[in-house]
Amino acid sequence: MRTIDWVDGAVEIIDQTALPGELRILRLETVPGLIAAIQSLAVRGAPALGVAGAFGVALAARLHAGDPDELATAVDRIEHARPTAVNLARGARRAAALLPRGADAVLAEACAIRDEEVAASEAMAARGADLLVELCGARPRLLTHCNTGGLAAVVLGTALGVVRELHERHVLGGVIASETRPLLQGARLTSWELSRWGIEHRVAVDSAGPFLMARGEVDGVVLGADRICANGDVVNKIGTYAHALGARRAGLPFVVVAPESTVDLETPDGAAVPIEDRGAAEITAWSAAANPAFDITPHDLVTAIVTDRRVIRLDRGDRP
Amino acid sequence: MRTIDWVDGAVEIIDQTALPGELRILRLETVPGLIAAIQSLAVRGAPALGVAGAFGVALAARLHAGDPDELATAVDRIEHARPTAVNLARGARRAAALLPRGADAVLAEACAIRDEEVAASEAMAARGADLLVELCGARPRLLTHCNTGGLAAVVLGTALGVVRELHERHVLGGVIASETRPLLQGARLTSWELSRWGIEHRVAVDSAGPFLMARGEVDGVVLGADRICANGDVVNKIGTYAHALGARRAGLPFVVVAPESTVDLETPDGAAVPIEDRGAAEITAWSAAANPAFDITPHDLVTAIVTDRRVIRLDRGDRP
Repeated sequence: MRTIDWVDGAVEIIDQTALPGELRILRLETVPGLIAAIQSLAVRGAPALGVAGAFGVALAARLHAGDPDELATAVDRIEHARPTAVNLARGARRAAALLPRGADAVLAEACAIRDEEVAASEAMAARGADLLVELCGARPRLLTHCNTGGLAAVVLGTALGVVRELHERHVLGGVIASETRPLLQGARLTSWELSRWGIEHRVAVDSAGPFLMARGEVDGVVLGADRICANGDVVNKIGTYAHALGARRAGLPFVVVAPESTVDLETPDGAAVPIEDRGAAEITAWSAAANPAFDITPHDLVTAIVTDRRVIRLDRGDRP
Repeated sequence: MRTIDWVDGAVEIIDQTALPGELRILRLETVPGLIAAIQSLAVRGAPALGVAGAFGVALAARLHAGDPDELATAVDRIEHARPTAVNLARGARRAAALLPRGADAVLAEACAIRDEEVAASEAMAARGADLLVELCGARPRLLTHCNTGGLAAVVLGTALGVVRELHERHVLGGVIASETRPLLQGARLTSWELSRWGIEHRVAVDSAGPFLMARGEVDGVVLGADRICANGDVVNKIGTYAHALGARRAGLPFVVVAPESTVDLETPDGAAVPIEDRGAAEITAWSAAANPAFDITPHDLVTAIVTDRRVIRLDRGDRP
């Protein structure tokens, strides 16, 4: 099952806000509808957002073929629907570069991006599984954060694809999924995907991660990224940095799995990345809030980054 | 308003599970009712649990005066209703020591414990405010965790009493309350108390704490303790350790405020403390869970502990 695809002239996604209660397919036939789906996190995850951006431009190219101004506005809105994951803007821009050649060329490019993410997931799973066994021992007990499964990509996923690969190799020692407040991508989505794959797991509150590491219940941390900066800083779902601090204190490997499409050499470091604040309503009805949706993990806390093409050993001085 | 008190022959508490939606008083006239209130967290917070344990024994002494076996069983059940905060067992045992002198003597001792906690809150507020200004600068912006206000004590509180004292001195620069999953003592209870005191604040998800520190939005961390070990290790609500790691990385003071009744010199270190696991239902309906309700912050991450009688500068080598 694909999280996102082009079906009969429109974009279809699994509505991630309805899981795990309901597996609902949303059909997106307009640009505002697609942008709303991105902003409500009905579709989310850096690789999936790249595909959504590209398909969004393909949709706009069909709907606004006769109106260049409206088309340009639509592309701009898609590109900026969310600020942090580089994949969204990059996918949109890559598809938009084909606009002079017509809507069919744009759609073909968007489908190519989708296919590349599928292939990237498979490559990351194999390479990441090899690395985790090397770093964590023969039966790694892993902690992961947010959702990095097929829902965050197109199929399989990034970090969770690695977890699945270890399971299929019969060497997975255990999984703890941190729930990922405020929207519970871990408790809702990762737990749902792991259950579908038949992988036993436990959910924990986010703040328990460092303690479970200190108590010896975890052999390594594996998670995804929304943007990887030129110096190796990792921008990812809020809570990632706290897990990285816990891993460092416990002496555990901290491994980031993300496709090359998430590596952004034009961003020098984490401080240069706009961090989306999603407002108080996601957290509390009773007060003001600070709600950064992402945080920055400095490169010195990251053991390695696994992409579809390489392993970047930050702990050995490699840089993206 | 007192969180817990003895009123006309029974224990009355503010039901902390109903806040902030409803300010409901629970009247506890039986030992099983009191134990249920402790286990459901209708009354919680280390100092309040000490008073609850003592009042529970006073209640048992009245109800079971003619049956020493039943009385002993009731005292044992109260003492062990929850395992981690030392105050509960200590309060219960201190009241139980008066059992040979009759129910009135037990009640008088329980009331003395209550009064001592009230006095302790006032002493901690003043001493803690002085220390935070010394460590964090003239207008500290503080991050706190869980609930350490009047609800956790009898009045005023521990760490939150310090926050209130800074506010009353007109030198409080800001407060971030971490929400404290899974039961949201920060978002529900701390936010409610701060609002009643007229103190502006923001709530954040727990895992955002270390990032908000790294981003320069916090000058210091101040929070409470469920047990302070002989070596200075601090056992407190899950998430405390992650905040301590964040504070250390950001170079910020990490200050624990707790009454002497929380210092347990008979516990050598954090590893010796039983950590309550409260089961999956508090976190998720969809999978298994790891749900430690507390964690252990090693003493080397703690700048200072403020009690009602002293400041223990762990950063200078002092020990409890």
